[in-house]
Amino acid sequence: MSDPVHMTSVVQAYIDGFARADAASIAVLYADDATVRDPANSPPITGREAIHAFYARAMDKDIRLTLNGPVRIAGNVAAFAFRIDMKRDGKPATIDAIDTFEFAPDGLITAMHAYWGPTNLQFIQEPK
Amino acid sequence: MSDPVHMTSVVQAYIDGFARADAASIAVLYADDATVRDPANSPPITGREAIHAFYARAMDKDIRLTLNGPVRIAGNVAAFAFRIDMKRDGKPATIDAIDTFEFAPDGLITAMHAYWGPTNLQFIQEPK
Repeated sequence: MSDPVHMTSVVQAYIDGFARADAASIAVLYADDATVRDPANSPPITGREAIHAFYARAMDKDIRLTLNGPVRIAGNVAAFAFRIDMKRDGKPATIDAIDTFEFAPDGLITAMHAYWGPTNLQFIQEPK
Repeated sequence: MSDPVHMTSVVQAYIDGFARADAASIAVLYADDATVRDPANSPPITGREAIHAFYARAMDKDIRLTLNGPVRIAGNVAAFAFRIDMKRDGKPATIDAIDTFEFAPDGLITAMHAYWGPTNLQFIQEPK
């Protein structure tokens, strides 16, 4: 289903799932045999069960996502820019990332790529 | 070459090439056998000569690009969000897009995908 309204709502559900630290609500957005590459140059995580475990681990890091700008839709792919607020080595940090979701005809995500790397990580200076 | 400094400078050269309406300066960022899919769900444009012609046509539309946020780097891929200001059917319009550049070991772009579609096009209301 290449419906921009549906695809945009899935991106919002993804953001909202992080806000609630609800890995299960994110896992169900994916097809059974979906692949996640986060970051995009890492080996794929394959299958909804492994993907669920991946997000459950992410929730432990108290991750929050903030969208930057509108979701871009090209055919069956949604791309979106966002900031991640998290703890890294116990310190508050941000990562600027861009994700792409490729959708299967049934509206589930079949492939996800997360574009970010060491140059996109910044530690936040806390007030003394 | 997966050097984030180089990859970021290529993105800046791409933006700057549009600012100067200089299609040749953009074409040389690409490998001889590179592919461009703009938008990402369109058939690929293949080879530097065809890519040069594609950008030369874009320059006729008086396109300007403004980066939104930092360039994201994952291995040999750079992803970046930006706004396009242009004329569409003679009227001022904007498109919000996200591009990915995949780099060959020699530092040239080997594959470009541009994520945008009809939902990312907005016409700007001009003051009367």
